[in-house]
Amino acid sequence: MAGLSRIDRRKFIQTTSAAGLGLSLMSFPEIVTGKDDRKVKLALIGVGLRGRNHLHLLLRRSDVEVVAICDIDKDALQKSQALISKAGKPAAKEFTGSETAYLNLLAEKDIAGVVISTPWLWHTRMAVDTMKAGKYAGVEVSAANTLEECWDLVNTHEATGVPVMILENVCYRRDVMAVLQMVRAGLFGELTHLECGYQHDLREVKFNNGKQPYGGGVEFGEKGYSEARWRTEHSIHRNGDIYPTHGIGPVAEYLNINRGNRFDYLTSTATKARGLHKYIVDQAGKDHPNAKINFKLGDIITTVIRTANGETITVQHDTNSPRPYSLGFRVQGTEGLWMDLNDSIYIQGVSEKPHRWEPDKAYMEKYDHPLWRKYGAEAQGAGHGGMDFFVIHAFVESVKRQAPTPLDAYDAAAWSAITPLSEQSIAGGSEPVHFPDFTRGRWMKRKPVFALDDRY
Amino acid sequence: MAGLSRIDRRKFIQTTSAAGLGLSLMSFPEIVTGKDDRKVKLALIGVGLRGRNHLHLLLRRSDVEVVAICDIDKDALQKSQALISKAGKPAAKEFTGSETAYLNLLAEKDIAGVVISTPWLWHTRMAVDTMKAGKYAGVEVSAANTLEECWDLVNTHEATGVPVMILENVCYRRDVMAVLQMVRAGLFGELTHLECGYQHDLREVKFNNGKQPYGGGVEFGEKGYSEARWRTEHSIHRNGDIYPTHGIGPVAEYLNINRGNRFDYLTSTATKARGLHKYIVDQAGKDHPNAKINFKLGDIITTVIRTANGETITVQHDTNSPRPYSLGFRVQGTEGLWMDLNDSIYIQGVSEKPHRWEPDKAYMEKYDHPLWRKYGAEAQGAGHGGMDFFVIHAFVESVKRQAPTPLDAYDAAAWSAITPLSEQSIAGGSEPVHFPDFTRGRWMKRKPVFALDDRY
Repeated sequence: MAGLSRIDRRKFIQTTSAAGLGLSLMSFPEIVTGKDDRKVKLALIGVGLRGRNHLHLLLRRSDVEVVAICDIDKDALQKSQALISKAGKPAAKEFTGSETAYLNLLAEKDIAGVVISTPWLWHTRMAVDTMKAGKYAGVEVSAANTLEECWDLVNTHEATGVPVMILENVCYRRDVMAVLQMVRAGLFGELTHLECGYQHDLREVKFNNGKQPYGGGVEFGEKGYSEARWRTEHSIHRNGDIYPTHGIGPVAEYLNINRGNRFDYLTSTATKARGLHKYIVDQAGKDHPNAKINFKLGDIITTVIRTANGETITVQHDTNSPRPYSLGFRVQGTEGLWMDLNDSIYIQGVSEKPHRWEPDKAYMEKYDHPLWRKYGAEAQGAGHGGMDFFVIHAFVESVKRQAPTPLDAYDAAAWSAITPLSEQSIAGGSEPVHFPDFTRGRWMKRKPVFALDDRY
Repeated sequence: MAGLSRIDRRKFIQTTSAAGLGLSLMSFPEIVTGKDDRKVKLALIGVGLRGRNHLHLLLRRSDVEVVAICDIDKDALQKSQALISKAGKPAAKEFTGSETAYLNLLAEKDIAGVVISTPWLWHTRMAVDTMKAGKYAGVEVSAANTLEECWDLVNTHEATGVPVMILENVCYRRDVMAVLQMVRAGLFGELTHLECGYQHDLREVKFNNGKQPYGGGVEFGEKGYSEARWRTEHSIHRNGDIYPTHGIGPVAEYLNINRGNRFDYLTSTATKARGLHKYIVDQAGKDHPNAKINFKLGDIITTVIRTANGETITVQHDTNSPRPYSLGFRVQGTEGLWMDLNDSIYIQGVSEKPHRWEPDKAYMEKYDHPLWRKYGAEAQGAGHGGMDFFVIHAFVESVKRQAPTPLDAYDAAAWSAITPLSEQSIAGGSEPVHFPDFTRGRWMKRKPVFALDDRY
């Protein structure tokens, strides 16, 4: 059972009926457990801008062979092969021609893991099919669009025994990981309230001129390019936090969600929707056909989560307004708090002056995570300030070790569930909506595994 | 009808049955309408630390005679007379001896207005009795503890025609007023999302040694001193935002609440309660009798309000944890946003670099409010960075002019209502709870009046 360590396999056998295993048992990748100097054969489904960023990082590694790539966009495949060639690596096998070409890729026996960087609506089905093919699935964020898809991830993982990892890079941001060390060292005392969000002016991502990825026009969908081709559609039809994981991922690690704790319920409240329509009118005039579109997504969505252990979390989604980028982190407990907006911290009895912020710099250095100490230099030049290196590193190391991934099916489900639950809450006038317990009660027994040492 | 301008009086006559007026019509203060060089005779009910701060400001004014003071604490009266004497003013008549001694003060005919700075549970009843006595009521925050008390303020105001002003000093903070000018100038475009809160480590206010106002012990109630004598009790019995107005006051002015807009509903979510118990144990050990107290107030209360016009407001209450003071303002619209945590602003097309904060200093100078330009020097040395001068100034000027107060009964009611509504929401698992419409629909027609010019 390729996807499970011995301990997990035992648990799996205890909790799953053997009847369901037949098919998945026959499709294990041909990789031997254990040695770190082994190479793993990986594939990528989706090699647009995001996929090629992952490809770039995989090509830098001596322990990875990229053996296959899949995309419906032939230009993306060409650009990927150019990257591979430039890295002095052998060309990858290409899969293309239809939206289900990825199934042919998954039929390749020697592939041990697959990195999925496709439009949101493909994430779950591709991750599910990857697990069913017995291959580690590394899936971009969010991992699921509906509650049923969240369950699909969990149920498929449990039925196949194959891990799925949500590739949430912000969990590996240097300051975010240092704060994790502070949390684990008890610096903040008992945690009480956390904040996070995705506050990013995406107007030039949602709209462009069909030629460049960012801005230059107000087109999207078939007339758009890159993310505008598919991402903007969600702002038309959905009113909820449609992109929660960059914020909630780190917070979930701080609070040991699914591992001693869990999300209990949320309320979600949306502002009126103004920003996208205004952008179109400001850029292209009120007579542009897109000025007639009724965007359902409120400009700012504020979600408040309460956990089983009594902490609260505020999550914001703010992508339609002019604003500086910020994930708005706040980590607060009975001894003090950190906020990233002002890069400041206050810990009673530690900070020099009572009631006064101090810069967080010295703390960030003191609590720098072992992973960053070990790989920080190597991570230079990886995307998003280096954090992309670590999320891919963790996925690769998990595959190499045939071990559970540090971010797993339950994390993917619980974090991604915020989207449909917040939609439901908003539609119900901010009514409280309860999270499913995707662990089926095992959150009470499960132990933290994320970034416990300097391995991955 | 002392408490109403001609226009308001006409409205009042249109909307109120004449039958209810008999008593209040007989008790108008003996002050002639209009002239700014007139002196007004004022009284203070409650001359503890807060009341004496107001007293100090009133004594600096040549247009005010403080003719009466009331407190059950004789030491507070003595200290007040000392202040009065030091200012070279004649001694004030004293009222004391029982909790209802203030009713004797209110029977004094020549008093035109009363500043009420008593424990929270006395605010509404004293403000109501003051209005019934035909005197302007200036009441400290919050103005009411229950929804019924909110209605008491509104109904008494409407029945008597006498104004009540909630003395919310933060509405007059220099940066807060400059931002009001920016809002009114349209700098932020159409407002969408605002944040505020009362984030103040009050542990040394809630507990002291019975001799000093701040800290030095873990006593409260009868064994405490100053605010600890009465304020701490609310943390034992109530789980909600028990002190919302410092944050919501300014935000309500930005959003024209009760004047073209109104609070529609809120949800409120509390963290577990840890801070106060921990403080007692840390300071005095687990065997101190107060270590047995079960504090009901969650350490951090997060309330999300939605307005009739589709904006959202996040309000936080955070008084039990070690942290730097912050009211956490954020004012965001379709053109940009301001936050006070980092003293920064971003306005698209105005800020030099896209997606980048800039310091708010130049904006604060450019949009400095006419009131601050005119009275800034005079406000030096008043409490809380000068803003206390302005709130008292506005009250005094309203009384002098016999004009409506800039913050009125509907403001006092709507802002104070957050407390009982948030308690109700928390008790109901963060259920959405609707605000009463204290204006009875007139919010649709009422126009903004707050700080429109440099007068008050």
